Amino acid sequence: MTERLVGVLRGGLVDPAAPLLCGDDMGVLRGDGCFESVRVRGTGEPVDLDAHLARLARSAAALELPEPDPAAWRELTRQLLARWAGSGRAGEGALRLVLTRGPETGTAPTAFATLGPVPAEVLRQREEGVRAVTLGRGLTADATVEAPWLLGGVKALSYAVNMAALRYARSAGAEDVVFVSADGQLLEAPTASVVWLVGDVLHTPPPEPLGILDSVTVRALFANAAGHGFDTEIRRGTPADLHGADGVWLVSSIRIAAAVTALDGKPLRSVPSATARLRTAAGA
Amino acid sequence: MTERLVGVLRGGLVDPAAPLLCGDDMGVLRGDGCFESVRVRGTGEPVDLDAHLARLARSAAALELPEPDPAAWRELTRQLLARWAGSGRAGEGALRLVLTRGPETGTAPTAFATLGPVPAEVLRQREEGVRAVTLGRGLTADATVEAPWLLGGVKALSYAVNMAALRYARSAGAEDVVFVSADGQLLEAPTASVVWLVGDVLHTPPPEPLGILDSVTVRALFANAAGHGFDTEIRRGTPADLHGADGVWLVSSIRIAAAVTALDGKPLRSVPSATARLRTAAGA
Repeated sequence: MTERLVGVLRGGLVDPAAPLLCGDDMGVLRGDGCFESVRVRGTGEPVDLDAHLARLARSAAALELPEPDPAAWRELTRQLLARWAGSGRAGEGALRLVLTRGPETGTAPTAFATLGPVPAEVLRQREEGVRAVTLGRGLTADATVEAPWLLGGVKALSYAVNMAALRYARSAGAEDVVFVSADGQLLEAPTASVVWLVGDVLHTPPPEPLGILDSVTVRALFANAAGHGFDTEIRRGTPADLHGADGVWLVSSIRIAAAVTALDGKPLRSVPSATARLRTAAGA
Repeated sequence: MTERLVGVLRGGLVDPAAPLLCGDDMGVLRGDGCFESVRVRGTGEPVDLDAHLARLARSAAALELPEPDPAAWRELTRQLLARWAGSGRAGEGALRLVLTRGPETGTAPTAFATLGPVPAEVLRQREEGVRAVTLGRGLTADATVEAPWLLGGVKALSYAVNMAALRYARSAGAEDVVFVSADGQLLEAPTASVVWLVGDVLHTPPPEPLGILDSVTVRALFANAAGHGFDTEIRRGTPADLHGADGVWLVSSIRIAAAVTALDGKPLRSVPSATARLRTAAGA
């Protein structure tokens, strides 16, 4: 049984073991492209696919890539999910949509999707949470507002710094990172957004002026929060807010919500029932 | 006649039109890898190959990738150059060495090289120079010194911001960019280093504390400068230094040296004979 399915936009499913990108694809030579990660429920239903396609379109516009055709991406997703269901796995899945500028010597973007199981480490983090460290992101908060070339809030393929930060965290005995601006404000995690609870109020930093990713999952969580006993507030914060909070989570499509159990070596308050409630509100 | 040659480390030459990377290669999904660009003289000789291999090794170490085997890379380069010479082109070439973390589901890095002609736009820029704009890089100078996860000076594949800055420059009627730190210091161009001349003294900003690339071509230029009537000084600068300089160049392996003829819309002093002398000193 294949561990992963791969499909090409307007080309359908392809052999997942076969190479797909040329050596001069700008996606690899320059990290020049964008992507989305979408959770697929055990029932085979993709979560918030329309919101992910809308964000892919915003990323593509910021990168001056051709506008993605949502109908074509939905059709490719449909084909992957049909094969996924038919393979007898019927487990939760992680769907990636990838759009690059294409080969340097070509004229068309490269567009493909992969679908695989949710990694075991992600399942573990949902249950046990993560220890995190704060790391400086170098930029001052709001640096990207008048500097669109810094690609604030764009889900570009250039994640080398994000990956290096995760490796640094592991070398420091943690599993994840909370990026902080040069002036001490909470930003985001390398592959997730940060949410903290004070009383019954969920907080998250504002994506727009801070140049961080506008999380599809945080949006869903905040939209559903009232029905699960939470109020919400979008506001700036500092690491001190996390140390004083009644709960802190890394929220992303595939992890949904992983409790942050310690920050910079100090334990954070963590209430499993709040995590469960939060995850339900996020649409788990 | 193929426009480009492609070869795989320890695999030799492959069909340049055939896909090489799997859809789950971390080089494309995360821009997680590093690269080098090496100029090949019309005689078929690669320029400063050892220095490029040494920098590839430093980038790989910073990314915690397996140490590149210089002998294997030299052998792959040799095979590409033999085919290049045999193809009857015998023109100047641009060689790229690319090393990624490899497929997410795999265990080995992806390592390959491409060799193609020097782009016509680069040849034009060598002759006519470039107009540049200064753009903020967001980070304060020295931000990367105590933050290795920011990958200062690492030639990683994550160039989306560099590419976005070049597009922004073009929309502003220029061809290139000089990045400036949040505190106003000269850094580098998206794919080149900055050198300026005052009297007979060539200047460039210090790579180490500024977290910018340690340019192989600037090193060669500075090492040979005395023999061509130049003194050299490595020191910090500001855009005002460029406006007051007797010459400003973007220096990189493939472009060698392109004169900056205007900065932020104001003409800069440009002396063609100095450009020619500089290019010779850089080993053209």
